[in-house]
Parts: sequence; C-alpha cells; structure tokens
Amino acid sequence: MSFEFEKLVEASDSKARLGKFHTPHGVINTPTFMPVGTQATVKTLSPEEVKEAKSQIILANTYHLYLRPGHELIRSAGGLHRFMHWDGPILTDSGGFQVFSLGDLRKITEEGVLFRSHLDGSKHLFTPESVMGIENALGADIIMAFDECTPADADEAYARQSLERTHRWLKRCAAAHKRPDQALFGIVQGGIFPELRLESIQRTLEVDLPGYAIGGLSVGEPNEVMYDLLDQTADELPKDKPRYLMGVGNPDNLVEGVGYGIDMFDCVQATRIARHGAFWTGQGRENIRNAKNQEDFSPLENGCGCYACQHYSRAYIRHLVQAKEVFGIRLLSLHNIYFLNHLMEQLREAIRQDTYQAFRKSFFAQYTV
Amino acid sequence: MSFEFEKLVEASDSKARLGKFHTPHGVINTPTFMPVGTQATVKTLSPEEVKEAKSQIILANTYHLYLRPGHELIRSAGGLHRFMHWDGPILTDSGGFQVFSLGDLRKITEEGVLFRSHLDGSKHLFTPESVMGIENALGADIIMAFDECTPADADEAYARQSLERTHRWLKRCAAAHKRPDQALFGIVQGGIFPELRLESIQRTLEVDLPGYAIGGLSVGEPNEVMYDLLDQTADELPKDKPRYLMGVGNPDNLVEGVGYGIDMFDCVQATRIARHGAFWTGQGRENIRNAKNQEDFSPLENGCGCYACQHYSRAYIRHLVQAKEVFGIRLLSLHNIYFLNHLMEQLREAIRQDTYQAFRKSFFAQYTV
Repeated sequence: MSFEFEKLVEASDSKARLGKFHTPHGVINTPTFMPVGTQATVKTLSPEEVKEAKSQIILANTYHLYLRPGHELIRSAGGLHRFMHWDGPILTDSGGFQVFSLGDLRKITEEGVLFRSHLDGSKHLFTPESVMGIENALGADIIMAFDECTPADADEAYARQSLERTHRWLKRCAAAHKRPDQALFGIVQGGIFPELRLESIQRTLEVDLPGYAIGGLSVGEPNEVMYDLLDQTADELPKDKPRYLMGVGNPDNLVEGVGYGIDMFDCVQATRIARHGAFWTGQGRENIRNAKNQEDFSPLENGCGCYACQHYSRAYIRHLVQAKEVFGIRLLSLHNIYFLNHLMEQLREAIRQDTYQAFRKSFFAQYTV
Repeated sequence: MSFEFEKLVEASDSKARLGKFHTPHGVINTPTFMPVGTQATVKTLSPEEVKEAKSQIILANTYHLYLRPGHELIRSAGGLHRFMHWDGPILTDSGGFQVFSLGDLRKITEEGVLFRSHLDGSKHLFTPESVMGIENALGADIIMAFDECTPADADEAYARQSLERTHRWLKRCAAAHKRPDQALFGIVQGGIFPELRLESIQRTLEVDLPGYAIGGLSVGEPNEVMYDLLDQTADELPKDKPRYLMGVGNPDNLVEGVGYGIDMFDCVQATRIARHGAFWTGQGRENIRNAKNQEDFSPLENGCGCYACQHYSRAYIRHLVQAKEVFGIRLLSLHNIYFLNHLMEQLREAIRQDTYQAFRKSFFAQYTV
C-alpha cells in the first residue's frame, strides 16, 4: 500500500506548500484541517454533515475508543470506518496526549505508561506495542506513534530525556506496526527548546515513515513561542512527506501554520466552542448568546455557504441555544467546521496562485484574535 | 383560504377512514402522526431529517414559544415556518395543556388563566383572545382553541363546569381569530364521562370549524378508559372534518385510535424515549443500553428504512448513548419518528385495502405494550 505525498506547488513567498496525500480511503488535499471525532463521532454531527462541511479526513482518539467501546469490538464491527459510517480517510492519535494529561492517574516507565481510566478508575498499561495493536485494530488510514507529550513547563533536561524516550518508543512502534494499509507517522517533541526540536527531528527521521508530526505544542505556551519554533524547525522535516501539527487549529493558527510549511492540523475547538454558543466569522470569535443577536435575522456570517447560514438566522440559533436545544449546537458546530475547512480551501487556492502572503495579510486585517 | 378535508375511503371493518387535509403548506394524508417541535425544533433533528422520516406536519407549542423567544419576534422573522425552516404544515397547540399543568403556578378565571412562567416566575395572563393573537402571530396552518384541559381525576361536577367554560372560550376564540389562512380547531373535553363527552361534542359543534380535536385524554387514565370513550364518542364528530386526538401517540395508541376514526395524533414520546436510550420495533419498546446490544452489529430493526437503520448498528448506537454522545439520541429520535410515520403509512394502506382489522391483529400479535 503506497501513501504517496504529491507536492504540487511550493509558495515563493513563504514555506507554504500545496499537496495531495493518497490514502486507502481517498486523496487528501493539503494543507487540510481534520475535525475531531473523539468517540467515533464528530460531536452532534452525522458523517454526511461533516463531509458536506468540506471535511476530507477526521481524527479519532485511541485512548477513548480503547476504553469504550473497546478496540476489539470495533475490529469485530469491521473497523472504525464501517463502525461509524465514515468512508473517507481517518487518523487515530496514539493516546499519548490523553494519558499524559491524566496527571496523578498515570506513571511513566521505559516500558510504557501505567494509567487509571478516567471513566472507572481501572488500571491499564499503554506500551508502544499495545498502542500499535489497538490502532491496527481500529484500522484508521493514518496512525500516530506512541510518544511522550512533553509538558509546556518542562525544563531542558526533562525535555531531552522525554524526547529520547519518544524516539526509543518510535522504533518499537515501527517494529510492532503490522498493517501496511495504515500509514504510521512519527512525532517530534523537544518542548520549547529549538535545539531539542531540531535534534528530535533528526532522531525521528531515523525511522523512515510516510509522514511526520509535530507534537507538544499548543499545550500552554504563548502563540508566539509556537510560531517561533515552527519557523525555526518545521522546514527541517522532509519536503516530500506530509507534516502534521497536532492539536492546533484556531483560525489564526491555521493561517500562520500553513506559512511555516504545515500540511495537516486538527483541533476540537470547532465543536467545543459551539457547545459554549460560540462561532467564528471572518472578524473573529463571537457568541450567539449576545443580546445583539436576539432580533438579528441575518445568518451567522453573510455569504457563508454552510447549511446553517443557508437556512437559519442568528435569532433562531440564539433561541435554540438559550432554550438548550441540541439543534443550536449542531448548527454552530457545522458552521465552525465549515469555516475552518473553507479557510483551508482558500489557503490552498492562495498557494496555487502564489498569493499566500496577500491572503494572510487580508485575513488578519479583518480577523481579531 | 379553504381547508378542505377529502374523505377517500371509509373502512367497512371499523370506523377507520382515509383522507386528505388541504392546508396552505401542503396536503396531509390522514390518518397521520405529528412529531412535536416544542421550541421550534423537533429535538436534536433538522427539518430535512424530520421530513425524510416521512413526517407530513409538525406541532409546535404556543406556551413555550410565547415565553421564549416570543411570538412577536417570530412574527418579525416572517412566521414560524420561515423562522425554523420548515416548509410543510404546522399545527400549534394553544398552551391550554401547559398552563393547566403548572398546578400551583396558575389560577383559572372566566377571563382566562393567570400563570407564572416556569422559566423565570414572571406573571402572564392567557385569555382566548390573547392566545388567538399569539397563534396568529406564529402563523401555523392549524391553530388550536384555548381550552381547559380537564384533569383525569376531575369529578363529574368539575368536568361539566370545565367543559362549559371551554365552550364559552371557544366562541371567544372564533371571534378573536383573525387569519383565514389558519384553520382553527375546537377541542372536546368532558373528562372520563361519556355523557359529558357527547354533550361537549354537541356544544363544540355549535361553532362551525374546519376540524375538531379530542383533548384531556392520555392524562393519567388507563388506556382502556380512553379507548372506551373514543369508541363511544369519536364517531359523533363530523365525518367530513379531520378529528385530532391530542397528545396521544404510542404505537399501540395509534393503531387503536385509527380504528375509532381518529385522523391526527401527536406525541412527544418518540424523542423523549430516545433521550432515555429507548426505541420502538415491531416487538415493542426496547432500550439500546441493554447488554445484549453491546456486540450486536444488526440495525435497531431489521428491514427498517430509516437513516439510522440503513447505516448504523445497535453496537454503535449503544456506544454513543453510553458515551453520552448526542448523535446517539439523534439516531434513536430519527428511528422512532420514522417508526410512527411508517406505521401510519401502513395503516393508511390497510384502510385503502380495507384490511384494517387484519393489520391491527397482525400488529398486536407481534407488539408487546
């Protein structure tokens, strides 16, 4: 099974690039945004809606699906695509971020991570080998290596120790990975230290893989620190492989990230902020609950092509959110996902026209972070 | 504006009848079931999904929409159809049932009902005239008269007093109703007393209207009491007008009700039981949470044509419900509404073939109440 990355255009005004990544469930036009379907569902939405909102690929969470309903059950169902009725590409993370987020509930050793379930407190061990077994059972097109997600406040000594463990684990992941129809991606760590990031890239590249990711960013550090690290290091990743910036996906991050040569992004924000009544427009983030929306019969964003903006007013969606009606959150989630995917579409077109910097400038002239 | 009721077929084996009710937003094939969209949304579903689940008409609640977002806001939005993006027929109740359900929070006088909002405790007065004003503003195709919904435990004296007030109020509703493009339906009361029910029908018919409803049933009395009352009284309603049994809509009620000559039903059960993980099949009500569904990769009901059954397994939907994912409730709601609408479709076909009793018998041979 080949996971070819076709690089179509390199921008002249930035490190942005346009590409196509081939997977068993279809071609992904890059740069791309991946909506998150943590528990085998992009919250509140049907797969058809996620697709209509221009999504090309979705992400699911290994940690959550391992705990519930269990990877063996999903294997029995014919794999994640069939289980959740999504026929496009899927990426699964490795659970690395989730288990390290458990804090006191987990213990890291060279063997792996011993943790307690956030659901029932039961004890589990994730090792590079066991995680590969789980991800192989889930059957996503792209699977992530089991890494240690270095905390934002880690000192250099800890960040070094952690990245070295991540590289030893990557070799074990590559050895344990059994399915050639799934692309294993390695993950770069190194905290906020540029030299460590560069070293981590070199060590990660020792394992030849169809794609590489940048992990451990957007974990609490300021945006500027992240952008600076991306500027200094992202381009050291292979030019002929997709580069995935993990867990990053506010509109401004997407626009900037593309300029540093990032091809893939994911983030839960689109559906998370919707649950709080928030949505994006070209001007920034707004909240539908604001009194000014009460009698506003215009759409969330004028000119937006999403289902919500085609048929519903701010007044109606505000009413639904105030009345705690799920359909309001659905409409906001749909709009937010469409907004990010449409933004990526515009970025791809700008790269094709070699006008990335002009697009970036015009975006930030309107958008308030 | 004409609200013609075409009676197409009268069954020879029961009082069942097949008809077509013409409204400004389309023709309703009767007998029919109306899903409830209390707050201008059928809970968790889009209008397109409600329609795809074979719904012909939906019901919205005057009390809820009056309190939030307000009928004047909906009038400004261009009416309920446009506000909620539903282009088929809509029926609004009158708030009668809701305000009488408020118990200590309301006071009944000849003028109307003084009540406190369940949302913020604010005081409001519903009169026949004010309710007609609200329903005219909402703009549904069918609007219900403001009645006193007699409690199931009312004694004969109270039930008589209550039905007389309902008839006086009906005359005031007819006088106050301003929009000929909206069909006003009168409501029969009379508690559980057949003579009062018959008297209420006579008094209600004193006002010539395009349709009549039976209210105050399924409010706590046993099914048998309701069926007995329907058997003794429903056929006294005009043969050439639609007959609507309010708030009744479990599958068994629909099958029996049609045999007594009922043309329209509504009920919140389809979406309410979905929120508890429950769904209907030809065998009765089941719960998706049951352990037996954990590894069951068959649909909710074999042979069902609904979106949920076409694409998802019990195992997947159970996982979603266990994980508190909204999409699970959506799929169950969709299935339940489809189930009721499909049942009505089968009942209409049985009446056309004059095989109602055979259909009823075969239904209850499988279905456990």
